Amino acid sequence: MTLGVCYYPEHWAPEMGPEDAKRMARLGLSFARIGEFAWAPMEPEPGRYEFGWLDQAIENLHAEGLEVMLGTPTATPPKWLIDRHDDILAWDEEGRARGFGSRRHYCFSSETYREHSRRITEVMAKRYGGHPAVTMWQTDNEFGCHETVRSYSPMARDAFRGWLSAKYGDVAALNEAWGNVFWSMLYRSFDEVELPNLTATEANPSHWLDFYRFSSDQVMSFHREQVAIIRQYAPDAMITHNAMGYFTHYDHHDLGAEVDVLTWDSYPLGFLAQGPEDQSRTLRYLRQGDPDMAGFHHDLYRGCAPFAVIEQQPGPVNWAPDNPSPLPGMVRLWELECLAHGGRFSSVFRWRQAPFAQEQNHAGMLRPDSEPAAAFHETDEVAKELSLLSDDLASSKVALLFDYDSVWMSDIQPQGTGYDGLYVAKDWYAAARKLGADVDIVPQGTDLSGYAVVLVPSLLHLTAETAEALKTTEARVVIGPRCGSKDENGNIPDGLAPGPLRELIPLTVARSETVPEGAGGAVAGRGGWKAWRDECETALDPLWTDEAGRPVLYREGRTSMFAALPERELLTDYLAEVFAEAGMDAERLPAGLRLRRGCGLRFAFNYAPEAVRLPDALCSDDAFVIGGRELPPAGVSAWRET
Amino acid sequence: MTLGVCYYPEHWAPEMGPEDAKRMARLGLSFARIGEFAWAPMEPEPGRYEFGWLDQAIENLHAEGLEVMLGTPTATPPKWLIDRHDDILAWDEEGRARGFGSRRHYCFSSETYREHSRRITEVMAKRYGGHPAVTMWQTDNEFGCHETVRSYSPMARDAFRGWLSAKYGDVAALNEAWGNVFWSMLYRSFDEVELPNLTATEANPSHWLDFYRFSSDQVMSFHREQVAIIRQYAPDAMITHNAMGYFTHYDHHDLGAEVDVLTWDSYPLGFLAQGPEDQSRTLRYLRQGDPDMAGFHHDLYRGCAPFAVIEQQPGPVNWAPDNPSPLPGMVRLWELECLAHGGRFSSVFRWRQAPFAQEQNHAGMLRPDSEPAAAFHETDEVAKELSLLSDDLASSKVALLFDYDSVWMSDIQPQGTGYDGLYVAKDWYAAARKLGADVDIVPQGTDLSGYAVVLVPSLLHLTAETAEALKTTEARVVIGPRCGSKDENGNIPDGLAPGPLRELIPLTVARSETVPEGAGGAVAGRGGWKAWRDECETALDPLWTDEAGRPVLYREGRTSMFAALPERELLTDYLAEVFAEAGMDAERLPAGLRLRRGCGLRFAFNYAPEAVRLPDALCSDDAFVIGGRELPPAGVSAWRET
Amino acid sequence: MTLGVCYYPEHWAPEMGPEDAKRMARLGLSFARIGEFAWAPMEPEPGRYEFGWLDQAIENLHAEGLEVMLGTPTATPPKWLIDRHDDILAWDEEGRARGFGSRRHYCFSSETYREHSRRITEVMAKRYGGHPAVTMWQTDNEFGCHETVRSYSPMARDAFRGWLSAKYGDVAALNEAWGNVFWSMLYRSFDEVELPNLTATEANPSHWLDFYRFSSDQVMSFHREQVAIIRQYAPDAMITHNAMGYFTHYDHHDLGAEVDVLTWDSYPLGFLAQGPEDQSRTLRYLRQGDPDMAGFHHDLYRGCAPFAVIEQQPGPVNWAPDNPSPLPGMVRLWELECLAHGGRFSSVFRWRQAPFAQEQNHAGMLRPDSEPAAAFHETDEVAKELSLLSDDLASSKVALLFDYDSVWMSDIQPQGTGYDGLYVAKDWYAAARKLGADVDIVPQGTDLSGYAVVLVPSLLHLTAETAEALKTTEARVVIGPRCGSKDENGNIPDGLAPGPLRELIPLTVARSETVPEGAGGAVAGRGGWKAWRDECETALDPLWTDEAGRPVLYREGRTSMFAALPERELLTDYLAEVFAEAGMDAERLPAGLRLRRGCGLRFAFNYAPEAVRLPDALCSDDAFVIGGRELPPAGVSAWRET
Ligand SMILES: [Zn+2]
Ligand SMILES: [Zn+2]
Ligand SMILES: [Zn+2]
Repeated sequence: MTLGVCYYPEHWAPEMGPEDAKRMARLGLSFARIGEFAWAPMEPEPGRYEFGWLDQAIENLHAEGLEVMLGTPTATPPKWLIDRHDDILAWDEEGRARGFGSRRHYCFSSETYREHSRRITEVMAKRYGGHPAVTMWQTDNEFGCHETVRSYSPMARDAFRGWLSAKYGDVAALNEAWGNVFWSMLYRSFDEVELPNLTATEANPSHWLDFYRFSSDQVMSFHREQVAIIRQYAPDAMITHNAMGYFTHYDHHDLGAEVDVLTWDSYPLGFLAQGPEDQSRTLRYLRQGDPDMAGFHHDLYRGCAPFAVIEQQPGPVNWAPDNPSPLPGMVRLWELECLAHGGRFSSVFRWRQAPFAQEQNHAGMLRPDSEPAAAFHETDEVAKELSLLSDDLASSKVALLFDYDSVWMSDIQPQGTGYDGLYVAKDWYAAARKLGADVDIVPQGTDLSGYAVVLVPSLLHLTAETAEALKTTEARVVIGPRCGSKDENGNIPDGLAPGPLRELIPLTVARSETVPEGAGGAVAGRGGWKAWRDECETALDPLWTDEAGRPVLYREGRTSMFAALPERELLTDYLAEVFAEAGMDAERLPAGLRLRRGCGLRFAFNYAPEAVRLPDALCSDDAFVIGGRELPPAGVSAWRET
Repeated sequence: MTLGVCYYPEHWAPEMGPEDAKRMARLGLSFARIGEFAWAPMEPEPGRYEFGWLDQAIENLHAEGLEVMLGTPTATPPKWLIDRHDDILAWDEEGRARGFGSRRHYCFSSETYREHSRRITEVMAKRYGGHPAVTMWQTDNEFGCHETVRSYSPMARDAFRGWLSAKYGDVAALNEAWGNVFWSMLYRSFDEVELPNLTATEANPSHWLDFYRFSSDQVMSFHREQVAIIRQYAPDAMITHNAMGYFTHYDHHDLGAEVDVLTWDSYPLGFLAQGPEDQSRTLRYLRQGDPDMAGFHHDLYRGCAPFAVIEQQPGPVNWAPDNPSPLPGMVRLWELECLAHGGRFSSVFRWRQAPFAQEQNHAGMLRPDSEPAAAFHETDEVAKELSLLSDDLASSKVALLFDYDSVWMSDIQPQGTGYDGLYVAKDWYAAARKLGADVDIVPQGTDLSGYAVVLVPSLLHLTAETAEALKTTEARVVIGPRCGSKDENGNIPDGLAPGPLRELIPLTVARSETVPEGAGGAVAGRGGWKAWRDECETALDPLWTDEAGRPVLYREGRTSMFAALPERELLTDYLAEVFAEAGMDAERLPAGLRLRRGCGLRFAFNYAPEAVRLPDALCSDDAFVIGGRELPPAGVSAWRET
Repeated sequence: MTLGVCYYPEHWAPEMGPEDAKRMARLGLSFARIGEFAWAPMEPEPGRYEFGWLDQAIENLHAEGLEVMLGTPTATPPKWLIDRHDDILAWDEEGRARGFGSRRHYCFSSETYREHSRRITEVMAKRYGGHPAVTMWQTDNEFGCHETVRSYSPMARDAFRGWLSAKYGDVAALNEAWGNVFWSMLYRSFDEVELPNLTATEANPSHWLDFYRFSSDQVMSFHREQVAIIRQYAPDAMITHNAMGYFTHYDHHDLGAEVDVLTWDSYPLGFLAQGPEDQSRTLRYLRQGDPDMAGFHHDLYRGCAPFAVIEQQPGPVNWAPDNPSPLPGMVRLWELECLAHGGRFSSVFRWRQAPFAQEQNHAGMLRPDSEPAAAFHETDEVAKELSLLSDDLASSKVALLFDYDSVWMSDIQPQGTGYDGLYVAKDWYAAARKLGADVDIVPQGTDLSGYAVVLVPSLLHLTAETAEALKTTEARVVIGPRCGSKDENGNIPDGLAPGPLRELIPLTVARSETVPEGAGGAVAGRGGWKAWRDECETALDPLWTDEAGRPVLYREGRTSMFAALPERELLTDYLAEVFAEAGMDAERLPAGLRLRRGCGLRFAFNYAPEAVRLPDALCSDDAFVIGGRELPPAGVSAWRET
């Protein structure tokens, strides 16, 4: 476990480099990420390279014993490259080319751009692949940021046709899979298929679904091209890419298979307004972030590959609607939480706040005048605490199944204002964490033996392997409404929902309804349901019904299935019963407190704006390695379990 | 009076056809509507027709004694047709062609498309015009759905110029009518006139008004071309087109003159979120629909032509923001309500829920697995009740004047956030229905003799015939504010508002104001006004004033005119007085209850989510033919009046 | 001080002209503004001029002793001109040409249009420059209305490149100033620079800032071309242009330098919904307008040049979301308030309400039927009161610094939902007016000696002259948070915020945070802060802190600086302390009451919907020249100070 920082030597006078490196080393950082937006400084004119500044920057870091993560600069093709080719720019859903002047303006389907992407990657890999300091490589930056996974360009259209042809072979198979007999959408050849944007009313959901899958695949093959080149020149380097939060436009399980470590960019305050939290929770957690946001993504990406945080929010950022300061201590909390969840490293974005351009109001470890900012001091604390932590990865008793294809299906056909497959999954995750559980977020097809409880919040479609794994595990399985309601084309399965889950629990969803906020039902004394409700045919008696007598929960043996989407309170209530049966902790933690086993310890993180006290049952007073029983706001405690 | 269903044999295996027809017949259905989206199955390649499947489908239905309503498939031109011609697609208000991939992507002004529309219509009419089962034809489907009446294409622009030239003859007349001397908008020829979209700020309202009229006329001539061909080959067939709810983009009175029966598509739950109801009413009527939505449209379209419902919501749909399940019994209620209002038939959309494509979450009479859904059972009930109903059409004592031109004028110049000509009319309709009245919604120029009360909620412009009819009727006339404020060009009339209404009530509107929600006034003890207020010059004393002393209502003899837009409570209060004077019922019904005379009976429909009891005065206990005095939620009662 | 009216003789039958002029003269008006939208009537065909109607209109006015303000008609180029040239239309931010059919459809960067602008100006100036009645000229109309300052056309792009080249000389200087090393935005030549719209994510803020400045400069040079021509033919005429309210797209200080009088268009009710007022204040002031809106703009434009109101709202308008009627007396109040603030004249828009086209629901002095409307009668009163008023301009003790460049910086980088440089300035203005102060709103570089108090609400960037003036004035200086946080390129200054203000008060802003509504802090017993907070490093003890202990206000000698954006109550509290120190009035006025010295009197204006009583301390009972101690709603009183 190490600490690092994102660094942009090209922004600063060359003479500042040696001192920067010295301060990083003194702080206890192990590496710096550099280079990922610097195409224009590297190649100021077509074919004329200037690497002196980068050579020097790497030397400065190397001289202080720091390792380097080098980024390919393909997120920011320079203006001269755009001007030379009219087929590089991505097109937005409104059918317009996206202009130069910021970043991520390229289309993943541009063959011209891929050629230049390979060229600049090869030039860099050749030059730096053998450098002893350059031990890590990052491809590009934040694939998909600013809605850039899905491009609606002519290049994308042509590539989509090819992708469909490869998938279906025969256009009749596509017509059948999509149900194109509906509304006379039958195609006679793949070349008749258009992109699904700008149709008179909504396009066929199967059309969108394949377009989403194609778009994700294009990201993968773009990434793979760079990886192949880097591996050639730097066979031992660790290769990564940085994912984002609350972002599902490509399949991160696919990306996980193509990297050594999957890093991600964690901005707990920035994401608060983007997430699903209501106004009162937003105000409560304004300077701490949602208590489950970071944990959810740590565990989600840990389910894709070894993971780490490469961009940790250091202070106010510039891009959320409002940008508050973190409470004192939050940067340390976030860094330790990453490591506790098994993160290989945690790295702050960025070293020094830039006084110019788009992100000038984004804090760094240093202020623009090079004085230390809060993140500097808090990282200093963490650096000193590293010696208390071991490399042990704890195992979890709870698995939560998560699937990008299913999220796409609900994104494409929400059917109601209150159902979002991603946020449903996060809600279920939060309920389990509220009870103190560690959770593995796992993909379809995962072997589920060894878990005590398996959660299936929002798998609209289940693969045969998943269905089999659910049948063979000994774990208690808790399933959300709408699960199993789709086949692999996003259509209603033969025999209706819940499809293959019927083998676990004998019921059929006769119909489903969605209702607006405020129109759900209450289960006496227990909170209520919202948004989505399945009306089931079954011989089972419902375990719970709402006050209008509508079934809310069914159970058969070790399998439970909600017939209506539980609000967090109701769900937590039920998980407490299931956890208790499984011999696990089943007490609700104080509001804002989260626990996590890792690094040989058990951690407590206080996201609440008030102090909280750890329940006595959790540990004895003399077990604390970090902190103690009372956690101030932003406080962290850790103890050794016996 | 009969029952029917919408049916898509092309979606299903051919061998399912005979059994489908058998079940329809057994259920008591009289007909099936088929064919209206099936261009691609009928003509899979340019000029190569495949009618075998359709022949067989018709035979299957015919064999079971079912009649067929055959739809022309022009709402869904196939991809090969779009690819062959670049002048078929409609353009949206943003100036972009609307792409293939859903439906209604054609422009009414495309001469190329009209040629193909006539061709496919003729091919079908020739083939099936003489078939004994094919007794009804539907042109196209839902003209105007997805904002498609108004196209902003070059074809539309050219046709608009021709339409203007035909209307005005001389461009000076157009300049005069529109007031183009304002802001230097004078044209030197019709070829200088552009479409009114994408101007720097709002275009001339008269420009928009003529464009709205032109667009409506284009729909009529498109429809008329198909009708002429069908009549040629099927001179005895009933011809219809299916209208929608809360939809005013073309003039339905014009369409009424071009069909034998005007059908419409009634989705009471789907329309709830689209309509004007507030949050608390939306939650109250979530699974029943607005109590006046269906009645309003039944009576509106009955004022255009003989009417029927061709698409009745059968369960949850897929296209509203949220899609709840109807309360048990609602489908029966809606079907009976249609017949009570004089509907020729009621037909459910659709036979079997499709498991694929855009509408896969739209319920049918059967589930995708062919099991009966709620609408099947409830239609079964209605089929058995048909024998209790006669063909008698009851007459109404209340007429409500409604006009599309006036709605367009207020759409184009709302002048305030709270005035919508359509919803004002619906509010007035609801107030009359709340008092138990049956209402005829009639067009301008209707002979008004024989009515006891005439309502004029939102006629911004009145024709000379209407003014004359209002003068000569003996009925009490109640007029809304803003009426008579426009001449035929949408301009302020000579002598100011209320224009020709001044001959009924001696006042002049000196100025009008609009106010936001919460800024209206209260009439002591009676509810209040909102949104719009006319300041009048008159020798009349106001009948009612608000608490600030502002006149709210004037009366002269049998004519009353509101000087401020009454909220529903205030309006109902006044209508109760007027109805009482006219010797009509004047008691408010229990919330959610609606009455209607028809089929030789008087019906009561309970839209409330709670049981309601019919007032004793309405009927004796032994008069009930259907139901009784107590109506459960979704309950229907009917009795014979003596 | 005089009264005038806007008049459109081209809208009316020629025979109405003489009577119109007579009525204007009888009413006591001194002039009429005419001609500014009449290009098509003047030049109905290319090169064929028709000036007979205008000659006659001017003669009619002249015959009655009225002067004429003649407008160039360039806000409305006729259709034939647009059709002849494809490079006249402006393009919107979405990249689309803005069509003909309303007004302001031209691009300031079109050389073709400038040629025609000069041509029509010269034709008019030649013809009317020497006419004895034509004593005033207005260029164009409302530059920038409907978002037209900033055009995204190819012509604008080319002109922007030229402007940048002239500003920076060398593209390396531009790269340095903008920080283009960030995200590889480095340019190799000015011809690589695009407009900042339609980028994948936000463009560089310095890029936007220069584009805003360029766009403002284009307006100035367009205006200057017309002025040069008019001066040539009418060297003694007064030249003006009419500005708008809450509008900052061009620099009005620049425009002030290019006119003799800066007029503006005051629509107090229309602007209410556009302004920053919350729902409860909007309802309270619905028929009066915000009590500080008109005063703020009077004083703002008085800081640019001699000022006047050329368009005074006369009744309901047509363009706000809702359009209420002013309370009786409001037009008189607004007219007198303009004169009290030093306005050279006040002129109503418009003489007679037009019954056709876009503004048919916009009131006039006369109704469409030529009967007098409220504004006629109220202007009549003012005309009679003119003799009570002298030409004296009072001097103010309070200066408020305002700067367009700073507003652009906060518009481009709001960084939070609650900070708007314009509305912050207006809030501070309102707080001072609430305490009875007269306020001068002054530009950067103003000599500040002689003022008792100087307010610096939202100067993100301060010029060296401003910093110097603040250092040398004896006045108490009160500064808002965020001031001094930008250098001249919109970047973070060396040494961080507050930049040059550090010489007045010894503190450094270590970081800043923004928070959503409801997340500010309260200062015990005094109201609170909102939206923006600076965390400062300083040896100073804070003067005020919030309940969480966060510093809110610092003071050093005569300089105070808020560390968090004060809500109006908190600010008023502090200004009361500062005013008291300075020996000024420091009592809060009754809600809705505003005072102003001018015309040799002190005025009180009652914007409240209830009557208010003037504090006895203000004046003795026998000093009143207009009104008295008790002011009804819309009441005005004035007295002579001794
Ligand atoms: Zn980022
Ligand atoms: Zn439909
Ligand atoms: Zn204006």
